[in-house]
Amino acid sequence: MLALSRQHERVALTEIPPPRPERGEALVRVRMAGICNTDLEIIRGYMSFDGVLGHEFVGVVEACDDERWQGARVAGEINLACHSCSMCQRGYERHCPTRRVLGILGKDGAFAQYVTLPLCNLHRVPAALSDRAACFIEPIAACCEILEQVAVTPTDRVAVLGDGKLGSLAALTLQSRGAKPVLVGKHATKLARVQRFGVQTALAAELTPKTFDVVVEATGSPSGMKLATELVRPRGTIVLKSTYHGALTAEAAPWVIDELTIVGSRCGPFPPAIAALDAGTLLPDALIDDVFPLHEATRAIERAAEPSVLKVLLQMPA
Amino acid sequence: MLALSRQHERVALTEIPPPRPERGEALVRVRMAGICNTDLEIIRGYMSFDGVLGHEFVGVVEACDDERWQGARVAGEINLACHSCSMCQRGYERHCPTRRVLGILGKDGAFAQYVTLPLCNLHRVPAALSDRAACFIEPIAACCEILEQVAVTPTDRVAVLGDGKLGSLAALTLQSRGAKPVLVGKHATKLARVQRFGVQTALAAELTPKTFDVVVEATGSPSGMKLATELVRPRGTIVLKSTYHGALTAEAAPWVIDELTIVGSRCGPFPPAIAALDAGTLLPDALIDDVFPLHEATRAIERAAEPSVLKVLLQMPA
Repeated sequence: MLALSRQHERVALTEIPPPRPERGEALVRVRMAGICNTDLEIIRGYMSFDGVLGHEFVGVVEACDDERWQGARVAGEINLACHSCSMCQRGYERHCPTRRVLGILGKDGAFAQYVTLPLCNLHRVPAALSDRAACFIEPIAACCEILEQVAVTPTDRVAVLGDGKLGSLAALTLQSRGAKPVLVGKHATKLARVQRFGVQTALAAELTPKTFDVVVEATGSPSGMKLATELVRPRGTIVLKSTYHGALTAEAAPWVIDELTIVGSRCGPFPPAIAALDAGTLLPDALIDDVFPLHEATRAIERAAEPSVLKVLLQMPA
Repeated sequence: MLALSRQHERVALTEIPPPRPERGEALVRVRMAGICNTDLEIIRGYMSFDGVLGHEFVGVVEACDDERWQGARVAGEINLACHSCSMCQRGYERHCPTRRVLGILGKDGAFAQYVTLPLCNLHRVPAALSDRAACFIEPIAACCEILEQVAVTPTDRVAVLGDGKLGSLAALTLQSRGAKPVLVGKHATKLARVQRFGVQTALAAELTPKTFDVVVEATGSPSGMKLATELVRPRGTIVLKSTYHGALTAEAAPWVIDELTIVGSRCGPFPPAIAALDAGTLLPDALIDDVFPLHEATRAIERAAEPSVLKVLLQMPA
């Protein structure tokens, strides 16, 4: 099958054998996949991952041990847990210390014609959802995680920093769940794309320091933490969503003096993400800039890395 | 009066006029004061403070508008709030944006014969408590703040990083409040001083990474955050107590991947600190290395900065 892989610090589109499902796994024919900033960071060296890239996808189950899943259109949770360690027993499967992570850690990903995943990782995609929208289930789930970790009320002042893929989607997700976020960015054209959906937007310089109850740092850059620290009120909360290759340098004194809470936030629950998409309260299609066929994946990656671009999808061959 | 002040980046012991109480303030004759790492950091430039240093003290009210306080032996909360802004109205007086802070921000401190503070900042010191013990009320209150912010149960694995003043006191405080902390340090002699009180101690290399539910970072150094990140379990909490002059450089990826919660923690409530000292469940005297008379304050500061030293007190002239 055709797959986009990273090997020895290089990324290439090559023909490789399709993956064989392990026990309990389904073989899924990938229909469409989304390029995430984490993919771009992995290409730069983050996580030192070698293998097939990609973790946002929608596909169809072609083979598995349970006939009820046969032919189902599915999205897949990306953490493969052991289900027996103390973290798993506590319900923290996404933090299983021996987990593999689709396209990120020890498990070939979805920028390919086929992918395998345990059945317990799969979620059915409602028929009304397009493949394009279904590619957003995984990143929207990660945005829903914010609300699992931090109580956000409709009267809280919430800022989302970063007008890229993650920030735009986080703002749309928070709004669809009843919060009133302000998306803070540097690019008027990107901000305009979420304004259409009623999300308030601002440039950083327009905001009053120390006035936000919750600041979601989704810039994908170490500099985002400085701005987050400036904007959040004393005793407020910074949700750290950005992952990047490299270190953060920050003045920690304001964190202590203002008794801030900083909450790292990674993957989240799929059901509320699917529900928000299915209810039509969250319309991510407007974030899509381009769809490339898998055989043009290298071009698609370049396109996704352009500063003005939000989402690029890969369409797999039928 | 004699006072130890910082002016134009230099610290000197000089004769200055005693402070005049403002409306609602008491004039307090200082009996004894403690030297904190924050004082040492301020001397190095932290907070750019100019004025009389010192914020841990016990003294006697010599003059005030309310005769009930006349002659009372008191400790004093260090944040002078406006009591009318939105933060104060929310009960966050310690975070009042226009606050002054004793010996730290815009308010002359207690390394002097006299200090002034609003009556609402004062707490009576029980007769059974020595002046030496009463000097620890303020820093113990700051340690009690940890338990105001983070739920710590007796079965939680808790590490306190830093065998200096703050870490040792945090370990003793947490233990006196029912937790079972491990004090993690580099100096066997310092660790031995809290072992006597039944606190478990360890060198960092002896600990298993990712096993602590709560890690209190009290090293006073940017490097403490790296160790805290290594020791805390996924979904665990780091309480950041250290304040220092300068920036922190850290890999933030583990904060996100492990969904850590980082809680900045500064000043805390006095009543539980006074109660713990009065009940005898917390005996800080063993942390005292030296007591110097005020006129030897410069020597006292040098002594307090020695690596092997925990607490140095200043005794004011009668």
